[in-house]
Amino acid sequence: MTLPPAMHVYLGDMPVEADVDALLAGGRGFAYGDGLFETMRAVGGEVPWWPAHRARLARGAERLGIVLPSARAMDRALRDLLLPHPDAVIKLVLTRGSGSRGYAPPSDVASVWMLSASALPPAPRAGGLVLRWCDLRLAMQPALAGIKHCNRLEQVLARAEWRDEGIDEGLMLDVEGNVVCATSANVFALREGRWWTPPVDRCGVAGVCREWALQALDATEGRLTPDELLASQAVVLCNAVRGILPVSRLGGHAWPSHPAVGDAQRRLAEAHPAFPVTDRGSPWA
Amino acid sequence: MTLPPAMHVYLGDMPVEADVDALLAGGRGFAYGDGLFETMRAVGGEVPWWPAHRARLARGAERLGIVLPSARAMDRALRDLLLPHPDAVIKLVLTRGSGSRGYAPPSDVASVWMLSASALPPAPRAGGLVLRWCDLRLAMQPALAGIKHCNRLEQVLARAEWRDEGIDEGLMLDVEGNVVCATSANVFALREGRWWTPPVDRCGVAGVCREWALQALDATEGRLTPDELLASQAVVLCNAVRGILPVSRLGGHAWPSHPAVGDAQRRLAEAHPAFPVTDRGSPWA
Repeated sequence: MTLPPAMHVYLGDMPVEADVDALLAGGRGFAYGDGLFETMRAVGGEVPWWPAHRARLARGAERLGIVLPSARAMDRALRDLLLPHPDAVIKLVLTRGSGSRGYAPPSDVASVWMLSASALPPAPRAGGLVLRWCDLRLAMQPALAGIKHCNRLEQVLARAEWRDEGIDEGLMLDVEGNVVCATSANVFALREGRWWTPPVDRCGVAGVCREWALQALDATEGRLTPDELLASQAVVLCNAVRGILPVSRLGGHAWPSHPAVGDAQRRLAEAHPAFPVTDRGSPWA
Repeated sequence: MTLPPAMHVYLGDMPVEADVDALLAGGRGFAYGDGLFETMRAVGGEVPWWPAHRARLARGAERLGIVLPSARAMDRALRDLLLPHPDAVIKLVLTRGSGSRGYAPPSDVASVWMLSASALPPAPRAGGLVLRWCDLRLAMQPALAGIKHCNRLEQVLARAEWRDEGIDEGLMLDVEGNVVCATSANVFALREGRWWTPPVDRCGVAGVCREWALQALDATEGRLTPDELLASQAVVLCNAVRGILPVSRLGGHAWPSHPAVGDAQRRLAEAHPAFPVTDRGSPWA
């Protein structure tokens, strides 16, 4: 592994002593966002969708040419982390590791990767999510679309558009004006009794919960304009940490509850024990 | 500063002890490429273009909403690094620092930033650079265009398209087919005795050497098709580490040397002591 011969690290205006830090600070994850990540929900010491997360990570690593750690090493690392953190949000970041300065990917370097556990998110707003439209449009980059890479400034800027705690999420359009996703969730719309979700071939992420829902709900991929979304019978957001969440409002538009949403949540509860259906429907609803 | 309550770091299949590393590993630079960088050339213990680099960094920080460290702290850090590394490539990475999980930018956190020194690059190929066209097209994202942010997977993928050491750089087009830049340099083309360079309002980086050349060479910003570039009298690449480098070949096309290139290099030599003109013209030519 090649590291710069000298490196100083700072926090605000103050220097920080750098040791093994050089491994991360000299790495391409830090320099270029040259990596991939997975955000997963653990329940009872297990990550029920780990095979799907690992498969998506492998697809991303293949696309970017990053060396995937062995399944054994990842399984062991996950087990070690889950033991003290059985119910948590688990994040895995896989980066290309370190190399000499410059964009050329080094050959034969070990990937640098990291697992971390965080607290579960608070329960979402009762009665459904409140959304806004984001001003920032997603650029079209088929080479990076679908995978969960670490170049996320578009999402950071979109999420920075509001600080109002009355807004739960923002919907993003692509530069052509089609609905793509929320800043950290996929979106499904119920139209004539059928679930639709935008394709992620030009921008957006192929979410693990989205993949599950496409199959389990027999949903259809298709481009959606904002007007088509607003004319839908119901709208939900989904991701692998929060499951399926109904949307109650988007700007000035409101949706009443729809039985198809509860039905989708019940199917998810059968598939993933972290999202059980309670008396009030989903614990999130 | 909020860090994940648990964090493990790995190199390849092996765990690495994490201490202050958490600062970097838990940071948004690592997670999202949520940062900016400057790559500079030091000569005789100084960075002659430091004011221009700092100004671009400030513009990027303003655009992304990242807190800029004080000029005093950056000046001092640079001085400390230059003392043992008077002639080097200096890299500054400024990231938003750490916050809780999720895209929402934390408020009131200290930026994490890093300075490093690397060896100067080897002298470029005598007689001019050999280029290729990259297949990967740059996406159009005006919100990120021009600034030198850390979301660089497009450049990494473009640079990964070739390993042939006979190729020095690759030219990139945008999705509409206009010439934008090389993977790590701006491009100028001489047309009817006048230097032209593509605008960087939709993609690409406003290079510090490019900014200098726009002024010093009285160059014009304008979109260039590949055919227009190939029909130019001369083509050069430029950046703040290597100065102005003539292009001798691009795919099957060859350019003879042109006196305007030597003239541009002489003007640069007057402006920046790291790029002196020697008997053979520029030390790089």
